[in-house]
Amino acid sequence: MAIGRFAGTAGEWLRGAGPEADIVISTRIRLARNVDGFPFQTRANPEQRRELADLLQGALKEVLTKERPLYVDVEKALDLDRQFLVERHLISRDLAGGEGPRGVVVTPPEDVSVMINEEDHVRLQVLHTGYQVRDTWKRADALDDALQERLPPAFSSRLGYLTACPTNVGTGLRVSVMVHLPALVITKHIEKVFYAMSKINLAVRGLYGEGTQAASDFFQISNQVTLGKTEEEILKTLESVLPEVVRYEREARQSLQRDNPSRLEDRVWRAYGVLAHARTITSEEALEKLSALRLGVNLGLVGGVDIQAVNELFILTQPAHLQKLRKDELEPAARDVARAEYLRERLKGKTK
Amino acid sequence: MAIGRFAGTAGEWLRGAGPEADIVISTRIRLARNVDGFPFQTRANPEQRRELADLLQGALKEVLTKERPLYVDVEKALDLDRQFLVERHLISRDLAGGEGPRGVVVTPPEDVSVMINEEDHVRLQVLHTGYQVRDTWKRADALDDALQERLPPAFSSRLGYLTACPTNVGTGLRVSVMVHLPALVITKHIEKVFYAMSKINLAVRGLYGEGTQAASDFFQISNQVTLGKTEEEILKTLESVLPEVVRYEREARQSLQRDNPSRLEDRVWRAYGVLAHARTITSEEALEKLSALRLGVNLGLVGGVDIQAVNELFILTQPAHLQKLRKDELEPAARDVARAEYLRERLKGKTK
Repeated sequence: MAIGRFAGTAGEWLRGAGPEADIVISTRIRLARNVDGFPFQTRANPEQRRELADLLQGALKEVLTKERPLYVDVEKALDLDRQFLVERHLISRDLAGGEGPRGVVVTPPEDVSVMINEEDHVRLQVLHTGYQVRDTWKRADALDDALQERLPPAFSSRLGYLTACPTNVGTGLRVSVMVHLPALVITKHIEKVFYAMSKINLAVRGLYGEGTQAASDFFQISNQVTLGKTEEEILKTLESVLPEVVRYEREARQSLQRDNPSRLEDRVWRAYGVLAHARTITSEEALEKLSALRLGVNLGLVGGVDIQAVNELFILTQPAHLQKLRKDELEPAARDVARAEYLRERLKGKTK
Repeated sequence: MAIGRFAGTAGEWLRGAGPEADIVISTRIRLARNVDGFPFQTRANPEQRRELADLLQGALKEVLTKERPLYVDVEKALDLDRQFLVERHLISRDLAGGEGPRGVVVTPPEDVSVMINEEDHVRLQVLHTGYQVRDTWKRADALDDALQERLPPAFSSRLGYLTACPTNVGTGLRVSVMVHLPALVITKHIEKVFYAMSKINLAVRGLYGEGTQAASDFFQISNQVTLGKTEEEILKTLESVLPEVVRYEREARQSLQRDNPSRLEDRVWRAYGVLAHARTITSEEALEKLSALRLGVNLGLVGGVDIQAVNELFILTQPAHLQKLRKDELEPAARDVARAEYLRERLKGKTK
């Protein structure tokens, strides 16, 4: 299927560029919308969902004409392809595991993905590399406006946008910033960050969002509240805190480099040694070692490997990606062997 | 001092050649002797010990003329040099830590070392690479005969050779074979080997002999009893058992390769990955990882590194060796850094 052309690369948002890219992987804006005149998913019958899917697909093709987007019919997709899209952060686990007519519109650089018939009729997502709250928001807002011109949203002048779940009512906005905080984890200051976030109603989640554990040293920081605040206020809350988190991580990195450089270098190079030589490796261990390698590359301790390559490996070594790369369904043990093989191909002999 | 010329290489016995060299590192014969007419060390005064040292040094220079041996006055040697000789298995910890006139006569390939004024007046050691009980014994026996012609030993027709400690009375002979048994350790069958050895009065010791723990996967198997048996009987006991140990280890290696080749290769290559990339490493971890690497080289899983190089690293990464190589006294933390540095120099980019 068409999405196969993505395998072997990762989305634009993993380019490792943009402001604060050594710490902030990506910025994501998500808008939850429903089409006026249609019942919410939970009450819609298959015919209504089919009609919605067709309507939205048509409208989004117009909105995104220049981007030449791809439509993936998630209902008809193979399990492996669904998992592949989840791993690339293009669809949610809920959309992958759902039922009935549903799909996703994706732009080729993967900076925009719009899920159709997820919990809400529309989940519009814009994903940019680095710390880019404003630009990401502007893009999402413009796409939302263009879509609303074609399909008016369910909206209440009292509540704002109406959504299937009350947690999204109001703005329907979630701003989410993915950060890499290895030094705060090593120095055991990460709990303080979590605590500070919870105080101002920000959520900290793992690499794969809601319901997934914070994996390794990667965290998604996002707003919890969508109601009773303007979009501007939500953006500002994130913008008031993120620079502090970045500064805090940067200080922790400096203190590691100052206090025990050998130990830090050792951690980084051992991680590289394992990644470039292991013959079998789980995705958890790969993630942990790639995190250490990423820190080493960012601190200039490892040369010859660029951040984009390391960022991409986080995605490309996930189970569905490995199976697409190997063009074969693989049992977990065989995946661990394939993962080690792929990491060696990409990393062995590359460092300086 | 003269022994400095040894640093950077290891003795002939670590050449990794000779019969069963994939499993048997070396064969060692040790003879305990005392010079007739002199009291044992415990009762000898400094003047008598000095006289003994001079007499023995002179006699050994004659016996070993062709070999152009080196004499190290251990009493006057620096602590670092003493430790250096211990690490190379040329002198015992007891001789290093002793007092008064004492020394060692060493041949340049380090296949013969004769300690003077250790527990006994003479501890004659012949050390050959691989499994070579007979040849090693012949060499030791001939040197012993030649020495006895010059300085008759304390001998009783009822007991045999008289020694300071009753455990060595009789033949004064210890045959000791150093074996590498990683597969028996991995498969947890090593305890059975220990049990079988103890049943026939063989001792199993660690890399640095008596009183040291069996380090990693290296063991010295030797006779416990020296009295009431002829030299021939002692040699035969070892010869009856060693081929079984070798066969047992070889079977364990085959079963590892057959049952889970990925896991075995993974263990070997991860060990290499750490050895070739770590920035700080303790001697215990280095030993453990070198053991896995040695197994990999012997099973043909790793190319480009030869067994001699790996064998040598066991010795060259010991604390005193590192300090001599770096020409500097180093604290333990600095030694761990220097050890990692040296391992990288020797191993990085060498494998295929």
